[in-house]
Amino acid sequence: MPHIDLPEGYPGIRSLFMFSPETAKPLNDLVQTLLHDPTTSTLTPGERELIATYTSSLNHCKYCASTHGAIAKYQLGGNEALVKDVISDPSKAPVSPKLRALLIIAAQVQEDGKKVKTEDVANARQQGATDKEIHDTVLIAAAFCMYNRYVDGLATWAPDDPGIYDAIGKQRASEGYLTKPFKV
Amino acid sequence: MPHIDLPEGYPGIRSLFMFSPETAKPLNDLVQTLLHDPTTSTLTPGERELIATYTSSLNHCKYCASTHGAIAKYQLGGNEALVKDVISDPSKAPVSPKLRALLIIAAQVQEDGKKVKTEDVANARQQGATDKEIHDTVLIAAAFCMYNRYVDGLATWAPDDPGIYDAIGKQRASEGYLTKPFKV
Repeated sequence: MPHIDLPEGYPGIRSLFMFSPETAKPLNDLVQTLLHDPTTSTLTPGERELIATYTSSLNHCKYCASTHGAIAKYQLGGNEALVKDVISDPSKAPVSPKLRALLIIAAQVQEDGKKVKTEDVANARQQGATDKEIHDTVLIAAAFCMYNRYVDGLATWAPDDPGIYDAIGKQRASEGYLTKPFKV
Repeated sequence: MPHIDLPEGYPGIRSLFMFSPETAKPLNDLVQTLLHDPTTSTLTPGERELIATYTSSLNHCKYCASTHGAIAKYQLGGNEALVKDVISDPSKAPVSPKLRALLIIAAQVQEDGKKVKTEDVANARQQGATDKEIHDTVLIAAAFCMYNRYVDGLATWAPDDPGIYDAIGKQRASEGYLTKPFKV
């Protein structure tokens, strides 16, 4: 049961966006820019969603990991196996060496920003990552340390039915984050 | 030395805002709404800055803890001792029972959203906190788990000179977060 009185029928962060529209606006603008907008990053939406999913999975945030895992799947042409591989062990997942190096940095940020190692940043750069892509990776991982805590810290509803996450994933991958909230 | 090539003379998150204006916009809108805007929360700007300062201190983020500590001081009429007391031990700091109860929740969020205890939320409510104030506390603590990781994860410049933080504190307490970046 949520810690505060939230509108029913809206899972996870969507119930919080209904409860507090004034904070929903910048939170949605941020996630749209970070994950969906094709003009603000040279990482693909699929790569960015994988970083968000992996971070949420490290934070054991069921709602965010399931939602962004489903969005990642749709952004990657339906490749659900790849999403599962990244969650289970990015060092063995069939992703590009660049994304693999960036996922290492994301895991360090998830623990503590000060854990990011100079040699791992150098390695990401060697694998082709630009300064902006390193920046985007750090900010996506940091942002999901916020979204995960927001969703879990107020004990929002995380549905058990995988079909719900799949439907959200399909909607967000196609429409982005600024359209109407998903209601079950 | 920062992990990426950042403009010189801008400390902490301000250098990142110069580097990436497209993410700076929602990040600044969020902090303005969370901490400064008097219409979006019934917690005072001073109370909200104390929650941000305390969370940043738990994350050992020197730049954010020093900056928001200075902003909190100015929002609290120059009461630097209170800021130090909250950082050192909120359970003994001379704050209202409501704020003390909310700071307990902030510390739980800093660790992990799932650590927030139903009985501590009930206690905050008993001390007069509304659902919106509990919400705002959780989101401020969660947001600073992002800002702290963003600032530290890219190894931005955290000045040693306390006078710099004091000058930033004075500017932000009076102008909010949407004015020009502070340059040393």
